[in-house]
Amino acid sequence: MAELGGLFRPRGVALVGSGGERDAVVRWALRAGARVYAVRGEPEGPPGVVPVPSAGDLPGDVDLAVVLGGDPLPAVRQLGDSKVPLAVVLGGASPSADRLSGAGPRVLGPTGPALFAPLRDDLPGPGIAVVARTGPQGRPLYALQELGVRLSHWAVTGDEADVTAADLVAYYAEQPGVGAIACHLDRLRDAHALLRAADHAARRRVPVVALTAAAPATRPVLDAALRQYGVVPVGSPDQLQDTAVLLARARPPRADGVAVYEEEATGAAAHFAALATARGLRAEARPGAPLDALLADPAVGVLVCPVPAPHPPHTDRLARALADAAEATDKAVCVIWGSPAGTEAAYRETLLGSSRLVTFRTFGNCVTAVRAYLDRHRLAAAHHSPFDETPAAPSPSARKARPLLRPGQRLSEHAAKQLLRAYGIRVPREQLVTSAAAAVRAAAQIGYPVVLKASAPHLARRRELGLVRVGLTSASQVRDTYRDLTEIARYDRVDLDGVLVCQMVERGVEMAVRLVHDPLLGPTVRVGTGGALAEVEAGTAVRVPPFGEREARAAVDELRGRPLLDGAGGGPPLDVDALVEAVLRVQRIALELGGDLAELDVDPLVVRERGQGAVALGAQAVCRPEAP
Amino acid sequence: MAELGGLFRPRGVALVGSGGERDAVVRWALRAGARVYAVRGEPEGPPGVVPVPSAGDLPGDVDLAVVLGGDPLPAVRQLGDSKVPLAVVLGGASPSADRLSGAGPRVLGPTGPALFAPLRDDLPGPGIAVVARTGPQGRPLYALQELGVRLSHWAVTGDEADVTAADLVAYYAEQPGVGAIACHLDRLRDAHALLRAADHAARRRVPVVALTAAAPATRPVLDAALRQYGVVPVGSPDQLQDTAVLLARARPPRADGVAVYEEEATGAAAHFAALATARGLRAEARPGAPLDALLADPAVGVLVCPVPAPHPPHTDRLARALADAAEATDKAVCVIWGSPAGTEAAYRETLLGSSRLVTFRTFGNCVTAVRAYLDRHRLAAAHHSPFDETPAAPSPSARKARPLLRPGQRLSEHAAKQLLRAYGIRVPREQLVTSAAAAVRAAAQIGYPVVLKASAPHLARRRELGLVRVGLTSASQVRDTYRDLTEIARYDRVDLDGVLVCQMVERGVEMAVRLVHDPLLGPTVRVGTGGALAEVEAGTAVRVPPFGEREARAAVDELRGRPLLDGAGGGPPLDVDALVEAVLRVQRIALELGGDLAELDVDPLVVRERGQGAVALGAQAVCRPEAP
Repeated sequence: MAELGGLFRPRGVALVGSGGERDAVVRWALRAGARVYAVRGEPEGPPGVVPVPSAGDLPGDVDLAVVLGGDPLPAVRQLGDSKVPLAVVLGGASPSADRLSGAGPRVLGPTGPALFAPLRDDLPGPGIAVVARTGPQGRPLYALQELGVRLSHWAVTGDEADVTAADLVAYYAEQPGVGAIACHLDRLRDAHALLRAADHAARRRVPVVALTAAAPATRPVLDAALRQYGVVPVGSPDQLQDTAVLLARARPPRADGVAVYEEEATGAAAHFAALATARGLRAEARPGAPLDALLADPAVGVLVCPVPAPHPPHTDRLARALADAAEATDKAVCVIWGSPAGTEAAYRETLLGSSRLVTFRTFGNCVTAVRAYLDRHRLAAAHHSPFDETPAAPSPSARKARPLLRPGQRLSEHAAKQLLRAYGIRVPREQLVTSAAAAVRAAAQIGYPVVLKASAPHLARRRELGLVRVGLTSASQVRDTYRDLTEIARYDRVDLDGVLVCQMVERGVEMAVRLVHDPLLGPTVRVGTGGALAEVEAGTAVRVPPFGEREARAAVDELRGRPLLDGAGGGPPLDVDALVEAVLRVQRIALELGGDLAELDVDPLVVRERGQGAVALGAQAVCRPEAP
Repeated sequence: MAELGGLFRPRGVALVGSGGERDAVVRWALRAGARVYAVRGEPEGPPGVVPVPSAGDLPGDVDLAVVLGGDPLPAVRQLGDSKVPLAVVLGGASPSADRLSGAGPRVLGPTGPALFAPLRDDLPGPGIAVVARTGPQGRPLYALQELGVRLSHWAVTGDEADVTAADLVAYYAEQPGVGAIACHLDRLRDAHALLRAADHAARRRVPVVALTAAAPATRPVLDAALRQYGVVPVGSPDQLQDTAVLLARARPPRADGVAVYEEEATGAAAHFAALATARGLRAEARPGAPLDALLADPAVGVLVCPVPAPHPPHTDRLARALADAAEATDKAVCVIWGSPAGTEAAYRETLLGSSRLVTFRTFGNCVTAVRAYLDRHRLAAAHHSPFDETPAAPSPSARKARPLLRPGQRLSEHAAKQLLRAYGIRVPREQLVTSAAAAVRAAAQIGYPVVLKASAPHLARRRELGLVRVGLTSASQVRDTYRDLTEIARYDRVDLDGVLVCQMVERGVEMAVRLVHDPLLGPTVRVGTGGALAEVEAGTAVRVPPFGEREARAAVDELRGRPLLDGAGGGPPLDVDALVEAVLRVQRIALELGGDLAELDVDPLVVRERGQGAVALGAQAVCRPEAP
């Protein structure tokens, strides 16, 4: 996306048309040191602007054209005669991306004049590269300059007829002086494009923080997907501001300890440490410890000093000491300045005057930002692009599984399990039978004890109806139970396609892995507690394919019930590797058959003792209707 | 606690001693319009101070004495000759509460001069009554006056030799003009005293918000206990500030809907609504709706307007419109002013100039405060003091249960279940047997099918060892199983006291109710998921006795797995009433035997279909050692 360079350091800018924003664009361009041309400009154009008869007459160093008002399409077409790589459309109707494709410049917009708001160039330090859809959405980030925070880049993408926010993220990741990329992206159209751009930024170790909007059901899925690519999702403009500043200013941490410093014993350090610990940080209140000793401690990666209320001259001295300490260390130094008014010189001049300190106004935003900073760098250090790891060709499993699909239909449990087996997910030995005699023969082949389950495509609450019987140890029990089950089914008017005779699997912890379609992100893989708990959303982790083994393991690790798998419930440690493997196999199904499967539930997936694997005791699969 | 009146509207103040803070106290007292006397004061005392020879000579309207420096004990004793109801000890050694008891004034302190910091008296509206342990801890609340927030009362209790923060909370709850009580209470000594004071405030419908410190394990217990009494626990000084202001200024809500207003489409309303919904609020983004229409909507209890970045003159007008709207409505109107600098006139003058608006700086603190406000009023409207509901006399159950206790020992499962049975908690029919023949006889009496369980006082992982067998349907199975179990036990060197033959209970959802001792709060009752999940702390709700049926139900309602109990997992709706009843019965045990039992686990408690009750399949009880 080298075409985007003209937005930030234009050498020459061409104006096409004469809409009301022309003067603002000219001021912006001249301030940036660019030569400015007006295509078919009237001779009495603004000073400093050189009129040229047509786009074809523009010199070769013009790297940005700005189309001002009117129907942009003819203007953009006309630029096809020039070598201008990028055209910004200001206002006017939105030309569709289709109509803009082909030869000619890339098009950014239609957007508003906020794109040409000037940036302060007097601020030191690594900057924040900003992309927002609209000016008002970008404004909270723009306003950071009032606190002395440098913005390295600023773009407002508007209707995104061609160039998208994702393109800008990818471009920013290549530029020097970018400490972090901050995005305010409501109405995300192509989430996967943003993920690819984030992957690019993650490879280049450039932090990205994003405030996005999504429907409530999609929000946790989108947040999980962003995290997979190292993006920090935030929930509000103030968190976007605070987190972006910390990510931009702090160097990669060399330790994950958070030392919480206070000089006056107010208990604030302990309160901050409690909040931080509750959010999973390794934080320790160190009241009274000398500042330089804390910063010299190799276990400390971040120093936080909460100042709940200013108290001059004591807190004036403290502010200076913190600013000096931040200058001398390469560790992150955060201050929480709790004054409601925030008018003190210690705040306005000493703290905000430092380009190394990061100053917060609330404990909550500081915890959120510090956690994002430590998490992000831990993940980034381990980032492997999933696009590198995902095999491109379909597996032999797909060839075996595809004939099992029945478009528009729910598969029988037996067929769903055959699909799992094709992908290497273990299922119990089982046979579908339709007579008591066949059940007894099947049981003998499978080996006692066995389980009998009534089988029908639509059979919820099978256990409650008494249609599952476990621990059958003899031919006579199997024969009696077969009759019981078919009688209950008849009584309850359940139309059976037979009875499954299954190998009895020793119990373990019941988990579930599922393939679920998300409206924004497509097929997703979820893992959580199985059995009756499956419907309870809390306690589920979600990932968006493609992802590698590391992410699959991270999904399992973030489950609420995770300690159980290590034996916290008094049981033996379980085969977590087998659960991770099952998640990856379901991902493989999602990548290869996700277009055909509306949903797939592996539930319960019984995870057994370490080394004993995991077995899918239940499976449900629903195929999507055939495309018309 | 009428004795505390002299702290706030003193008629006469007596000075005892002549420590360095005397002038500050005199200024404070004269400013409050009090007459000031110096006991044994030198004739050349400060102007306006009347010397008296001894405490016995003080006039009857002296309602506060201030002991300045030196050993406070003789001074306080000397005040016993007067009718002064309250003495403040400034500085000096801490006299122990024991030595201060008996006749004479109540004593506040030893504390610091921050107690006598003057309050602004030019601010309108209901105020915040503040109590803090130290001046620095109180300072963030004191500083609210810079934002135009009225403080109605201010106290710094210091070492609390006699008068405690709890006394002040109870006193404040009686005073007119108190909109909310805000406490900053590190090093809480007597948590139950604070709970009793909170109960008093809840009866009088005065909101209390508290920032407290506690060990990490106790923190959730303390927060739960505070919530039982309508106190809002917060985690940081900035949340304490923001929440106190909303609670003090907003009248009781008439609806629980949160309308989120924005004029300019930045998506901020949707972001706020998403955060609020995630925190359990009924919030709706209403961009573009007219302000007065939203406030007229009877479903709306709170209006929130996020302004992510100021943009004059637009946001100047908006700020005025919001201030006017807040003046005209009796609903809560909150503004989130997102400017990093916060120097705009719209903020400093228009928003902060309103005594009706509540202005926040971050989305997070606004969500926290609004939620506290709505929750608190919902709870307060339903508040029944548990002290009224708890029967004072021990129940007949206690007489039956007490002989089962064995000081310092773990009870057998059988004895633990007898204890539960004494308190009306259902347990399966069961018999402890020591021979195969007795097992067969017991099974016949109990009725097939039966469960056999190896019984020993210390028997963890019984299931994993294969020492529980379910679904035995014949005498021969019982006989064989008896032998199996005793053989396994011999092999694993488990010293059995017998085998339990138990009625087989149909399965339901396995929950657990436990009695756990907390170091700060004493016996607590916890409810959560049973079986293997019991050790996973998340998903457990805790309550501190005494509590009523409403709280027991609330505890069950806040469980993560709550939807399961209503059949969300595909099962039938379960007997939630029976679970609530079990929680109350365990509470009864905690109230009556809590001093003797170190722990009691009812786990699993099988909750069956609605109307079918709950049955304790397992029980563990450990008795405390006898007091020496």
